[in-house]
Amino acid sequence: MQVGSMQVGAMKVGIVGLGLIGGSLAIDLRPLGHTILGVSRNPKTCQAAIDRGIVDDASSDLKLMSAADVVFLCVPLSAIAATTEQLIPHLLPTTVLTDVGSVKTTVVETIAPLWPNFIGGHPMAGTADSGLDAAFSGLFTDKAYVLTPIETTPPIALETVTSLVRSLQCRVYQCHPAEHDRAVAWISHLPVMVSASLIAACLTETDPTVLDLAQKFASSGFRDTSRVGGGNPELGLMMATYNREALLRSLQAYQQQLGQVIQQIEQKDWATLESELTQTQQIRPQFL
Amino acid sequence: MQVGSMQVGAMKVGIVGLGLIGGSLAIDLRPLGHTILGVSRNPKTCQAAIDRGIVDDASSDLKLMSAADVVFLCVPLSAIAATTEQLIPHLLPTTVLTDVGSVKTTVVETIAPLWPNFIGGHPMAGTADSGLDAAFSGLFTDKAYVLTPIETTPPIALETVTSLVRSLQCRVYQCHPAEHDRAVAWISHLPVMVSASLIAACLTETDPTVLDLAQKFASSGFRDTSRVGGGNPELGLMMATYNREALLRSLQAYQQQLGQVIQQIEQKDWATLESELTQTQQIRPQFL
Repeated sequence: MQVGSMQVGAMKVGIVGLGLIGGSLAIDLRPLGHTILGVSRNPKTCQAAIDRGIVDDASSDLKLMSAADVVFLCVPLSAIAATTEQLIPHLLPTTVLTDVGSVKTTVVETIAPLWPNFIGGHPMAGTADSGLDAAFSGLFTDKAYVLTPIETTPPIALETVTSLVRSLQCRVYQCHPAEHDRAVAWISHLPVMVSASLIAACLTETDPTVLDLAQKFASSGFRDTSRVGGGNPELGLMMATYNREALLRSLQAYQQQLGQVIQQIEQKDWATLESELTQTQQIRPQFL
Repeated sequence: MQVGSMQVGAMKVGIVGLGLIGGSLAIDLRPLGHTILGVSRNPKTCQAAIDRGIVDDASSDLKLMSAADVVFLCVPLSAIAATTEQLIPHLLPTTVLTDVGSVKTTVVETIAPLWPNFIGGHPMAGTADSGLDAAFSGLFTDKAYVLTPIETTPPIALETVTSLVRSLQCRVYQCHPAEHDRAVAWISHLPVMVSASLIAACLTETDPTVLDLAQKFASSGFRDTSRVGGGNPELGLMMATYNREALLRSLQAYQQQLGQVIQQIEQKDWATLESELTQTQQIRPQFL
């Protein structure tokens, strides 16, 4: 469900990881009156964040988070578990912890037992770039921001993070971590594997003349369909690793669907193929 | 191979089919000094083309083509055979005939025996819109325009059409019809089936909550990967019908590639998956 607008008082907001997401959160939250405390492993990033006025204070030491009312964990999925263990000795018992990982079941299962005052989050925004230099104001505007409370999530954690991210002009949604992961498997993780396989398949062409022509003729259709498959391999690997079960289920359904298309073309069953393509044309706008 | 620039004298250019492609050809060729003669089945389209100054003359009668030095056949693939048969009784023996169909083997095999002074062509340009109202100046600029001569193609046919389309600021390529069809199977026709199957696969989700979330969460990654699969079903059907053999070969290679990705994820063979995704990231720019 989408969550309505709320008022939010000035808070001390900790941000661990000053990259694209953490930096952009800081850039948009600080002008709203919050005090922004940033942590980065890299002292140069800390200094850059202070110099550019993105944060009120920054440090490579997680101790800085002891003053925070709420902490956004903005590190890669692979670093979330270790960072959480290092972070929690420094937190006040009342501090609300949230993360921005793009997969939720494993993250929530990892953090919630360590820090019950936690709520999983996933801002569905990003660019091809990364790092503090890529951060900008408005990254989250009109984007979906998914919060994934579970039975044991304290209402105050949900309310605090909802009010903060709502103030970024996001569309805020709530669902169970497993529902989130199955949904993003369809619309984010499956497209990466489908798209990467397209590029890889073209390379199986054994006639160098045809491959050369294919490269010369490729235009907007190939560019768009191959875009996410030609992205950062670490992201694709992360999706497969952390959302393996849901992704496999989507991949198997996709493979079956593709097999039907192949069969229709083999059997010259043009009526069924046309009906399928008509359906996909009609259905696609519901996803956009 | 890409063909170099040539000078071209003023000609009488016939265009049969005043849609997006035919109309845009007329719009850009007439200002270069050529006399443009247009044919459309629809008298209103003929009148509109005259009123807008797109053509010098237009008619629903193919007799108008008896004055043409060169005729561009700009009708849908499914209408090419019948239109050619109706057209050739009206042509001068010296008239060069070319077409703009997106598949070449079947077209060349159909037309060349009927009218030897023919060369197949495929301007790789288009928009989501169709019809004369969608035609515009510059549609072909910087786009690939493929010409597909065969052993029996008269040099004059190749030279005439090359010089005309070169004057549209196209990148002009030459290859055998079969090479063209295999190349476009990879970068144009396979992406449509891959993309349509993505949309269709999402609809197999049986949990309405998850499907609803997927529709709400879908953003640029899904939008781009699903774009060509959500396009005009007639175009997809045409690709499958007229380029069936090459498309099937590409689909089977794709299916095998996808099976490998699934196996890597099932077996948690992250090293191989990462190496594949790294390769697709590195290779994609060669297609753009």
